[in-house]
Amino acid sequence: MKDRFARRMKSLKASEVRELLKISQQPDIISFAGGLPAPETFPVEEMAGIATELLEREGRKALQYSTTEGDPRLRALLAERMRSSHGIEVSAEDILILSGSQQGLDLTGKMFIDEDDVVLCESPTYLAAISAFKNFSPRFVEVPTDDEGIIIAELEKRLGENDRAKFIYVIPDFQNPSGRTWSLQRRRAFLEVASRHEIPVVEDSPYSELCFEGEPMPPLKALDSDDLVVFMSTFSKILSPGVRIGWLTASPALLNRYVLLKQSADLHTSTVGQLLVRGYMDSHDLDADIACIRELYRSRRDTMLKTMDEEFPPGIRYTRPNGGLFLWVELPEQINARDVLEKCIERKVAFVPGGAFFPNGGHENTFRLNFSNMEEERIVEGIRRLSDVIGTFISSNVKIVTGAA
Amino acid sequence: MKDRFARRMKSLKASEVRELLKISQQPDIISFAGGLPAPETFPVEEMAGIATELLEREGRKALQYSTTEGDPRLRALLAERMRSSHGIEVSAEDILILSGSQQGLDLTGKMFIDEDDVVLCESPTYLAAISAFKNFSPRFVEVPTDDEGIIIAELEKRLGENDRAKFIYVIPDFQNPSGRTWSLQRRRAFLEVASRHEIPVVEDSPYSELCFEGEPMPPLKALDSDDLVVFMSTFSKILSPGVRIGWLTASPALLNRYVLLKQSADLHTSTVGQLLVRGYMDSHDLDADIACIRELYRSRRDTMLKTMDEEFPPGIRYTRPNGGLFLWVELPEQINARDVLEKCIERKVAFVPGGAFFPNGGHENTFRLNFSNMEEERIVEGIRRLSDVIGTFISSNVKIVTGAA
Repeated sequence: MKDRFARRMKSLKASEVRELLKISQQPDIISFAGGLPAPETFPVEEMAGIATELLEREGRKALQYSTTEGDPRLRALLAERMRSSHGIEVSAEDILILSGSQQGLDLTGKMFIDEDDVVLCESPTYLAAISAFKNFSPRFVEVPTDDEGIIIAELEKRLGENDRAKFIYVIPDFQNPSGRTWSLQRRRAFLEVASRHEIPVVEDSPYSELCFEGEPMPPLKALDSDDLVVFMSTFSKILSPGVRIGWLTASPALLNRYVLLKQSADLHTSTVGQLLVRGYMDSHDLDADIACIRELYRSRRDTMLKTMDEEFPPGIRYTRPNGGLFLWVELPEQINARDVLEKCIERKVAFVPGGAFFPNGGHENTFRLNFSNMEEERIVEGIRRLSDVIGTFISSNVKIVTGAA
Repeated sequence: MKDRFARRMKSLKASEVRELLKISQQPDIISFAGGLPAPETFPVEEMAGIATELLEREGRKALQYSTTEGDPRLRALLAERMRSSHGIEVSAEDILILSGSQQGLDLTGKMFIDEDDVVLCESPTYLAAISAFKNFSPRFVEVPTDDEGIIIAELEKRLGENDRAKFIYVIPDFQNPSGRTWSLQRRRAFLEVASRHEIPVVEDSPYSELCFEGEPMPPLKALDSDDLVVFMSTFSKILSPGVRIGWLTASPALLNRYVLLKQSADLHTSTVGQLLVRGYMDSHDLDADIACIRELYRSRRDTMLKTMDEEFPPGIRYTRPNGGLFLWVELPEQINARDVLEKCIERKVAFVPGGAFFPNGGHENTFRLNFSNMEEERIVEGIRRLSDVIGTFISSNVKIVTGAA
């Protein structure tokens, strides 16, 4: 058949990593690969009760078409939560319900990107955001980051060089994949630069409620006096990913456009799913649930870091995240994390090689570890095996270097 | 703020009609506007039972992330149904679960359309397909239709003229908006042309199970020996639109690409929603439900047509669909259906003016009537009011014409 595909399809391919990671779904694999929440935190019985009551009481509504914007009561509950938990002053009309916050990324790409436009992002950044934006054929300009977040001078420089910059995509809290959180000072400086350049900011905030120590940072959106920030979040990490309910808030001019784009993408988000989440928020203390999730993940992070501190060979750097689901490892430069993964799979351990998080490639010596989805015993065992494998790479590498000298 | 929107956003605007139709959601309006199924057909109690059992038995799975392709058991049930009800020979691996079949249209646009590429479609065609494809900035080439479907000679001519044709989008059964169904002969001739031109066909089939009389026609996909047809359908019209579960099947080469595009669009379709539908299919006789829906809609169609036959002024043409949810009206050319709608809204009756169903405009003297969502008494009353309003337009129009002569 004659090739009738759009140009964008040329860059679309299943990653080798994805194929490799399919193996990680086998039950005997210790997987640090996915970004899955711990299923034991799901309020299964409570949701069963709500589902029954909901369908019995308003089943015809729950099973019918509904508006693109989303259920009015759910939007109101979210606006209230945005004010109380995030310090973001919005009302129900400012909220759009999404079919997961991933949809917000797709709609953002559609809204802003023409072929060869520029998307600025942190380096590294969330791999599924790269995939979503890539469908609109932008050039990615990566902005270097350090332990306090995006580096302002580097951002300034790249904004100056790129006329066709359309927006800046960032994850300021417990970033995926690095686990890093921006400092308050960096947030303010960032917004000052964005305002001066009048460039939209897309703040992806799936993890901000999972802060293990101290006070959470205010989101960019709470500091955003020029209404430049599109803020998006999700129930995936605080209640359930399987319901696929996310949301975004943005200036009215942008929100209206998001609504129209969403309408042609999937008409509206599952009515049943929205009413389930609304029912849960109405009848349960989500904050108490989140406190339990935090405790569980903090303990898992501690176990992972402690085991890494004890077992990892010297010369390996890793982040010590203060929340979220992930930490980030840098191996010596000559070691390729894909090779390490291949060996690890033989030992029934999986993770995601870091190269996939850099839209322009490179950084093959890095990888991401997830600590939310495995029990602590398995974390200890998995990190031990991983350390073994890394050890063999480092020693064989030393030998090669020695042999060549 | 500097305009940083993608070019596609220029053509994106809320239609005036949509604004007008918001009024049609008021409970005292007799609405023939939407495409809503009758909510009294929803198996509310059964779904409540399934939801409880599902969440109690496999809640952790139902609330967790799942694969992009969809639940394996649901895919298997759908493959079986495609074979038994549609004569389409597929297996579970050939099925992709969608967040409503609207998502299939969005992904199709993404897969095939570069700016200024050509999409061929029936004239008129489904308005939300126009919106979905429009986001990728194609030129639409409309192919005239008659009572037997798309006109083959017209299709041949346009295929010959348009090098950049990417696919043909069609709704062969109880078309939205016209209510028409293609004859078997036309289906075969159409596929012969598509095969000769090696052009993909997107067959949108949300209504094919709602056949009121006689045997349903085989879908194009069942006659498609060259694997050119992408077939998509949905549970929206046979079980529930609120769960947002659709599906598609296509050749393996296309299906793999659809999976990748879906992954970046929303990761996967709601796990809860998929398991609800799967649970329903496993424990209930969907065919018996569909038989009841057919009965109800047939009776409503009969009532609508009978009242139109009795009440409409002479000189107005309309289709007599053999199934589905819609029929199509043509007023005398000089009457604009938008003006008629405005007057009808004052009389608490709504419908959708036909212009919106023609991607290149025109045909303002047409409109679409939905007969699935209103009880018969209200259908009679609504058609009477509509006839009154049309009557005033015709008589004032006659006067103007006379006055001008």
